[in-house]
Amino acid sequence: MLKTRLTERMGLRHPIISAPMAFAAGGRLAAAVSAAGGLGLIGGGYGDAGWITQEFRAAGNQPVGCGFITWSLAKQPALLDLALSNKPKAIILSFGDPEPFAKRIKDQGVTLICQVQTRRDAAHAMACGADIIVAQGAEAGGHGQSRGTLSLVPEVADLIAKEHPETILCATGGIGDGRGVAAAFMLGADGVMVGSRLWASKEANVSERMHEAALNSTGDDTIRSQTMDLARKLDWPRQYNARVLVNEFIRRWHGRESELIAVADEEAAKYRAAWVDGDPEKSNTFVGEVVGLIRTIEPASDIIERMMREAEELLQSKPKDIISKS
Amino acid sequence: MLKTRLTERMGLRHPIISAPMAFAAGGRLAAAVSAAGGLGLIGGGYGDAGWITQEFRAAGNQPVGCGFITWSLAKQPALLDLALSNKPKAIILSFGDPEPFAKRIKDQGVTLICQVQTRRDAAHAMACGADIIVAQGAEAGGHGQSRGTLSLVPEVADLIAKEHPETILCATGGIGDGRGVAAAFMLGADGVMVGSRLWASKEANVSERMHEAALNSTGDDTIRSQTMDLARKLDWPRQYNARVLVNEFIRRWHGRESELIAVADEEAAKYRAAWVDGDPEKSNTFVGEVVGLIRTIEPASDIIERMMREAEELLQSKPKDIISKS
Ligand SMILES: Cc1cc2nc3c(=O)[nH]c(=O)nc-3n(C[C@H](O)[C@H](O)[C@H](O)COP(=O)(O)O)c2cc1C
Ligand SMILES: Cc1cc2nc3c(=O)[nH]c(=O)nc-3n(C[C@H](O)[C@H](O)[C@H](O)COP(=O)(O)O)c2cc1C
Repeated sequence: MLKTRLTERMGLRHPIISAPMAFAAGGRLAAAVSAAGGLGLIGGGYGDAGWITQEFRAAGNQPVGCGFITWSLAKQPALLDLALSNKPKAIILSFGDPEPFAKRIKDQGVTLICQVQTRRDAAHAMACGADIIVAQGAEAGGHGQSRGTLSLVPEVADLIAKEHPETILCATGGIGDGRGVAAAFMLGADGVMVGSRLWASKEANVSERMHEAALNSTGDDTIRSQTMDLARKLDWPRQYNARVLVNEFIRRWHGRESELIAVADEEAAKYRAAWVDGDPEKSNTFVGEVVGLIRTIEPASDIIERMMREAEELLQSKPKDIISKS
Repeated sequence: MLKTRLTERMGLRHPIISAPMAFAAGGRLAAAVSAAGGLGLIGGGYGDAGWITQEFRAAGNQPVGCGFITWSLAKQPALLDLALSNKPKAIILSFGDPEPFAKRIKDQGVTLICQVQTRRDAAHAMACGADIIVAQGAEAGGHGQSRGTLSLVPEVADLIAKEHPETILCATGGIGDGRGVAAAFMLGADGVMVGSRLWASKEANVSERMHEAALNSTGDDTIRSQTMDLARKLDWPRQYNARVLVNEFIRRWHGRESELIAVADEEAAKYRAAWVDGDPEKSNTFVGEVVGLIRTIEPASDIIERMMREAEELLQSKPKDIISKS
């Protein structure tokens, strides 16, 4: 068993959090992750009151948390009260300024997690009182920025050690098996947040065709792009883009952003229809570079047990293999 | 001491290779790295016969290797013979197809190292007979592509295990201290290649003002851009860009590439003059995200000794800290 500041503080069996993946991470996945000993999070995403209520209900008695896309939550802040009324184990805020929401969350005694993409945003999250900082690298599936996990995590670890040592640090982006988990610990993380690998689970809300597309891809087949957000007419701040599989849609629009903006009304309708259809060519499969390490769609508990066992075995065997007394 | 397949195969004391950094990595740095127990490489870069001869001489009796930017070597292939005539310990090819050069290198019994940025290029490098593959992530300083180290390394490790298990794997990009080294081992690497951290050494050919700029920066202050190559009128294939510090030049030109191309003749002269001057605002400081972990300019041997000691200590202590029997 792996015991860290994260497992202690949150009362977990395993130092793993599932990512609050919009659409894909409903109550079923979150509950499966919590039941497996991690911290499961519902992906509140852009925010829909009916969906959030339904997914908390779907999680049943399992303690789960909920995530929001912060700039979107700012447009309908009452959704935070809705989430808090469901007694979440944690609220995670990503992609925007957590400051307007931090106090309400902490006042209810709920753990505040902030997902950040830069050292600068990590410093701000600490100033806002984040209990846990998740440092996200660009290999991640879904939205993010450009810094890589391998260098962002130790830089944020140094900042935490200097300014606010009680803050817990998780690594996310590019962690697909026990190797990534063990590496995250070496970099100074207290735990990991896992998105894509759990997106590729039985409990995720993902179309079979998108799962299929992922199983047939390597990490080389992913790309970061803003075209999906332009086609959906979503107001993402310009510093963010998202990682998806390269497909028909990307080949058509990536690099032709201004043309896409010009026809966005028409494209948005087509895109949304294809998305509802689960079409991996006319809409997008949001998944990270670890897609190249994913070979099966399994129950979340199997994925988590294996990742943790692999990490523990590596932590035990690797030092013996390479440290020589001479 | 850390003993891996890399130290055994190459007869090294430490599993570390210094990156063949154009301009910055001359014979002095390469020799210092080899003397410290690693494998030092001269950065043959775009290729200049006089400079290469001089730098092999500067390395003296230390066994060192030499690197080339492969697409540029293809324009003056005789430079490979020049390098081989200096009895290099290894030749490293990066950024282009190694196939036309692989046989000549291997026929002389010289170790062939290929630096790759994708799983696809790793497969091709193996097919060309690479003895060592260096998997480079986008956090790296200098040129590269977009995949992150944390997910590229295990994916290439799996490919090697399946197709050509004798091939040795090194990780590069974002490794600035012992944490990155230990993480690389967990990901499946046999060793590391280090660029930026050794660029920030006493033996590197770097202007004092650029070192100063780096010491005052965090990883957030770096960016990948093609503007430097456009301003220098270098024919880089479009899939590559390079990581540099954000500065006056980047703020002026990044995002205005077509305007820059239109005035490139004029800009090239200005750029080259500023580069010769070591000007960190009007030319560029090529350095990676690990700049945020660099606090001093030291002798290469001190940097290497510390990185290796830190990695060994972490490999020893971390498993004890987090593995619990209950
Ligand atoms: C399908 C998908 C949807 C995502 N949606 C969100 C989201 O709504 N909010 C959020 O904070 N992060 C979202 N992310 C990013 C994750 O929080 C996390 O940073 C990422 O999955 C980690 O990298 P990995 O995919 O390599 O595990 C999403 C990721 C994926 C794969
Ligand atoms: C100043 C500088 C110049 C570089 N020049 C070259 C080069 O000429 N050829 C090459 O193969 N790689 C070059 N690189 C990339 C390195 O080989 C290596 O991939 C990179 O430095 C690793 O990432 P790191 O900087 O985080 O250690 C350069 C890197 C830097 C920092």
